[in-house]
Amino acid sequence: MSAPRFQRAAILGVGLIGGSVALGLRRKGLAARVVGVTRSAEKAEHLVRLGVVDEATAALDAGADGADLVVACTPVGSIAEGIVAAAGVAPGALLTDAGSTKAQIVEAVVGRLGPSARFVGTHPLAGGHRTGPEAARPDLCDGATTIVTPHDGADPEAVGAVCDLWRDLGCRVETMAPDAHDRLVAVTSHVPHIAAAAVAATTPEASLPFAATGWSGTTRVAAGSPALWRDILLTNRQAIADGVDALLDHLRAYREALAEADAERIEQLLDEGRRRRDALGD
Amino acid sequence: MSAPRFQRAAILGVGLIGGSVALGLRRKGLAARVVGVTRSAEKAEHLVRLGVVDEATAALDAGADGADLVVACTPVGSIAEGIVAAAGVAPGALLTDAGSTKAQIVEAVVGRLGPSARFVGTHPLAGGHRTGPEAARPDLCDGATTIVTPHDGADPEAVGAVCDLWRDLGCRVETMAPDAHDRLVAVTSHVPHIAAAAVAATTPEASLPFAATGWSGTTRVAAGSPALWRDILLTNRQAIADGVDALLDHLRAYREALAEADAERIEQLLDEGRRRRDALGD
Repeated sequence: MSAPRFQRAAILGVGLIGGSVALGLRRKGLAARVVGVTRSAEKAEHLVRLGVVDEATAALDAGADGADLVVACTPVGSIAEGIVAAAGVAPGALLTDAGSTKAQIVEAVVGRLGPSARFVGTHPLAGGHRTGPEAARPDLCDGATTIVTPHDGADPEAVGAVCDLWRDLGCRVETMAPDAHDRLVAVTSHVPHIAAAAVAATTPEASLPFAATGWSGTTRVAAGSPALWRDILLTNRQAIADGVDALLDHLRAYREALAEADAERIEQLLDEGRRRRDALGD
Repeated sequence: MSAPRFQRAAILGVGLIGGSVALGLRRKGLAARVVGVTRSAEKAEHLVRLGVVDEATAALDAGADGADLVVACTPVGSIAEGIVAAAGVAPGALLTDAGSTKAQIVEAVVGRLGPSARFVGTHPLAGGHRTGPEAARPDLCDGATTIVTPHDGADPEAVGAVCDLWRDLGCRVETMAPDAHDRLVAVTSHVPHIAAAAVAATTPEASLPFAATGWSGTTRVAAGSPALWRDILLTNRQAIADGVDALLDHLRAYREALAEADAERIEQLLDEGRRRRDALGD
C-alpha cells in the first residue's frame, strides 16, 4: 500500500456520513490518522470506543489543528462556520463538506475565505434511515454518486483533489454548480421528503394499524430528524417551493379527475407516474 | 390432517393474490381441488405448469361449476359480475372476493343475489410491487390483516365461514362495514399511491440519475398498473377526494412556511409527519 495521501484528517460531525467517511479513510489507507470533532466529550469518548476514529475531541481548534484534510459533516446550519474555523488552525488543508444543500454553504465559506481557498463543496448521495455513528460503515459510499460543486473562481487543484478523495472513497463523482445542485436535490430529495411527511401527517392515527407495505415505503423518509430537515429545507427554499407548486398542480389534476370520474385522465396521470418510476428501476 | 373443508375451490383471476390464495388453500389442505379461472387458454395452461392450481380454464361456467368456494381476485371492475356468474353455476357455494374497494362491489353483488346470499366481501391487506402468479406464494397472507366487510343483512354463517377461511390462510381478521373499509384504505393506500405517483411524475426526467434511496422508497408503489389503479380510485372517489384535500391543505401549509422562512412552523409540520411515521415502526 502506498503512503496515505493525508496525514491528519479532521471530520467535523461524526454521524452516519461523517463516521462512514472516517471509516472509509482509515480502511482504504487514505489518511494516516483520523480525528473526529464532535459536540461533547462524552460523544468523543463514545466514538473512539466504537472504533470509528483514531481520536476524537469536542474542541474544534484542537481537532483540526494541523490537519491536511477537513470534511464537515455536521447539520447544514453549522457547516460554514465549522469550515471557516477549521481553516484558521489548518492552513493549507483541503476543505470540503457533505451538506445536503450547497449554494448557501458555499457562498458563506467563499465569502469568508475567498474563492481561491482550498475549499470545494460536495454532497455524497448516500445515507439511509438509520442514523448516527453506530450505523456508519466504510462502504457506505460504494457505488453512490457524490456531487462536487465547484464555485466561480474555485482552485482547479482543490477541485481535482476533492474529486479524487470521493472517488477513492468509492463514489462516482459528478460536478455541477452549487445552485444547479440545489435545484436538482429539491426534486429528487426535498420535495419527496415533504410529500412523505405530509402523507404520514394526514393519515388519521386510528388508521395506522391497517397501513401496509405501500404506506410504509411511501412515508419511510418522514422518520428523519425534523430539526435537520428544517435546516435543509430552509437553505433551499426557492427551489423546493417551485417543486411543491408542481406537486400541488399535479394533485389538483387528480382531484378534478376524481370529481369528474374522468377514467381516461386518471389513467393518464397514473401512467405519467408509472413511466417516471419505471425509468429508475427497483 | 382432517378432511379438506372445501371440495372444489374456484379462484377467479389468478395473479399475485389469487395465486397465493390458491397455493395457500392447497398447501394448508383447505381445499381438495383448486381450479383457476383466467382470461385465456394460454394463461390457463401457464398456471397449471407453474403448479399454482390443480386445473385452470378460461371458461368461468366450467371452472366454477359445482364449486363450494369461489374467491374472486380479478381487478375490481370485474369482481361483481364474476361472483354473480359463479353463483349461477355453484349454488350454495361460499362466495367472497379480494378487491381493494368494497362498497361498490358489495352493493352490486347484493343487488343481484340479495343480502342473504352466501356472499361476504373481503380485502386481504397483502401484496407487493411484484405481481402475477409467478410471484404468488402460499404464505403471502401470513401475519397480514384481512378486512371482512359484512353488509346489512349478511348471513352470519357466511360471515363466520369467510372469517375462518382467511384465518386458516394465516391472516388476522378484522370486520367492518364496506364503506368504513373504503374510507380506511383511502388514507392508508389510495391517497399514498396518488402522492407517490405525483412525486414521480413531477420529478424531471433529467434528475432521475441522481435519485437516491429516499426517492425510490417514496415512489415505489407508483410502479403499479395504471389500469388497475384507475379502477380502484374510481370505485372509491369520495373518500379519496377527501384525503387528497387534506394532503393539499398540508402541502399548502409547507408552501406558506417556506415562503415566510418560518423555521418553527416547518419543524412543527415535519414533526407531525415524523410522529405519525414513528407510530408505525419500520
